Amino acid sequence: MSKASSSATAEEKEEPIIKVYGWAARDSSGILSPFHFSRRINGDNDITIKIIYCGICHTDLALLKDESGITNYPIVPGHEIVGEVTKVGSSVKKFKIGDKAGVGCMVGSCGSCNNCKQDLENYCPKMIWTYIGYNHQDGLKTFGITIYSPMMHFGLNNPDQHLGVVGLGGLGHVAVKFAKALGMKVTVISSSPNKHKEALERLGADHFLVTSHEDQKQLLQAAMGTMDGILDTVSAPHPLLPLVNLLKTDGKLILLGAPSQPPELPHIPLMIGRKIVGGSAIGGMKETQEMMNFAAKHQITADVEVIPMDYVNTAMERLAKGDVKYRYLDVEAREVLMTRSLSCKTHRFVHCKIDVLHWDVTDVIYGM
Amino acid sequence: MSKASSSATAEEKEEPIIKVYGWAARDSSGILSPFHFSRRINGDNDITIKIIYCGICHTDLALLKDESGITNYPIVPGHEIVGEVTKVGSSVKKFKIGDKAGVGCMVGSCGSCNNCKQDLENYCPKMIWTYIGYNHQDGLKTFGITIYSPMMHFGLNNPDQHLGVVGLGGLGHVAVKFAKALGMKVTVISSSPNKHKEALERLGADHFLVTSHEDQKQLLQAAMGTMDGILDTVSAPHPLLPLVNLLKTDGKLILLGAPSQPPELPHIPLMIGRKIVGGSAIGGMKETQEMMNFAAKHQITADVEVIPMDYVNTAMERLAKGDVKYRYLDVEAREVLMTRSLSCKTHRFVHCKIDVLHWDVTDVIYGM
Repeated sequence: MSKASSSATAEEKEEPIIKVYGWAARDSSGILSPFHFSRRINGDNDITIKIIYCGICHTDLALLKDESGITNYPIVPGHEIVGEVTKVGSSVKKFKIGDKAGVGCMVGSCGSCNNCKQDLENYCPKMIWTYIGYNHQDGLKTFGITIYSPMMHFGLNNPDQHLGVVGLGGLGHVAVKFAKALGMKVTVISSSPNKHKEALERLGADHFLVTSHEDQKQLLQAAMGTMDGILDTVSAPHPLLPLVNLLKTDGKLILLGAPSQPPELPHIPLMIGRKIVGGSAIGGMKETQEMMNFAAKHQITADVEVIPMDYVNTAMERLAKGDVKYRYLDVEAREVLMTRSLSCKTHRFVHCKIDVLHWDVTDVIYGM
Repeated sequence: MSKASSSATAEEKEEPIIKVYGWAARDSSGILSPFHFSRRINGDNDITIKIIYCGICHTDLALLKDESGITNYPIVPGHEIVGEVTKVGSSVKKFKIGDKAGVGCMVGSCGSCNNCKQDLENYCPKMIWTYIGYNHQDGLKTFGITIYSPMMHFGLNNPDQHLGVVGLGGLGHVAVKFAKALGMKVTVISSSPNKHKEALERLGADHFLVTSHEDQKQLLQAAMGTMDGILDTVSAPHPLLPLVNLLKTDGKLILLGAPSQPPELPHIPLMIGRKIVGGSAIGGMKETQEMMNFAAKHQITADVEVIPMDYVNTAMERLAKGDVKYRYLDVEAREVLMTRSLSCKTHRFVHCKIDVLHWDVTDVIYGM
């Protein structure tokens, strides 16, 4: 962010700017406070959005505290942005003032490579994350589309199938909702026995397996070879072998969390069941819109705790302790986080992203 | 094998037997010498084959020397068997005396599970390997079908595709031949620079990459993101990251070798390219026949060094030192190895396997 600020000085000579502010962390304490900087004015292909809500997830916390050693301070976090359109450039056709729009963790891509041509901007080698200096490892987690895209791509979307969902956090609880909306049989796999009731009664999962308790081994054993696929949303290090063992022949374990250390690959069990371990990261713009429409159609929303902006530092503390269910949403963030997303070098792409994420149903508030 | 001999005593009371012999190792020296034992006579659903050739691969060596601590001595190795039919049971329809037939490393399955019903006997939970006490880890490697099956299953069989082949041993050199027969672009990836000429000039590969030399890094770098799939045939421990990096978005790394230790999974590169790491082990009976027909049609044979049976101990020594190209074939093994394959508890299934592996083209001698 400091680099962006200094390079912005050069850019200022070339184009008109406006003064904006966000809430930034200045050092690895991660404490957020108001921060003033500049960005360009709304261009012909741009829209400006007034940010109403922004999700908070562990990725934000990790970057604020520089857990991966890649943060440039000051940094304004946030990548699950929901807003209302306040300005529309003359070339913009899909938005009008007052529309709702969302921005996820991707704000740009080259637009011309094979991946971009196939609506896979999220795998473009020049894809640009919403955060400056935000590297791939930490930018993989975001809501809905992170779940929806691998379900569609890997064919884990059939009512006849049995899906395992590892972890019942932000991604996991949405995975259960999507899978149940698709009519699938769903088993939640968790290390916390106290999520049992939540998984079954509130989210509608069919089964619940605890991986960490000795007395659950029999259940795990009974479930071996029963799942068509597993979505693994856990970012903490954990062994993959028990999960691979739960898969049927040709079963698919899809990694969506990003533990800091590479796990051991149970290669022999993969071979003797023709199983795969795959990875997936968010989704392309077209598919993200599809996901939004799917969520709207099935009235699927993420479960959130809504907080005011000035509670954010306490929220981060609670997040670090695991004292939050699913997602926070900052309420009335308004201009604050918008300025963040538009302040990076990739602002020329923001239009594209938002353009596609036009909301079909105004009732659905959903982080991407 | 000792267990089989003792249980065979009980079985002898129930059914007629014949006396046979094989070449067995008695201890972890792995030295092979003639060995006498019993098996049942040819039944209504059985055929008896006179074994003409049997391939030797590193799996045999590992079992003879009990490298995995699972060998029951005495053990008669061999799982790439080619023979001629000498007896045909009254219910057998697909074979007549004088036909050529083959036996691979699988001799039985339950015949009724979902996998068996889908012609995936090789993934049957009750699948029976040709060796008694022969565990999965060591029984995964065998010729043609081990290559053909994953190419078909994972869709790595298209003339527009670029296939990487890691390792140029028994499996690897067949992979190059199959891929070239399918019109694919093929790059051999090896740790041995001296296989360059062999790969390109004799086997017809398009490119050759050495992983172990500093001065090859530029070539590796240039090849990043260019491959649709990679067949990894190497059994020695090696990192997967350089291979995953060679894959395009949605690329597939398929593990066919079985290193003794699980490799580290480069999970983040998988996620940011929606790539997969999969495994595969031999193939079902139907597909194995397809592979045989494909090989016959394209006149693809494995490259072998043919040796007499009494050279086998020297051959094993040379194999241990890597002093052999591709595969040995014992010539005139005749009754020797046949008795091995029929002596295990699974003999009732041998018919099924052979039944399917009826050869269409007599000129093709091919280990399975």
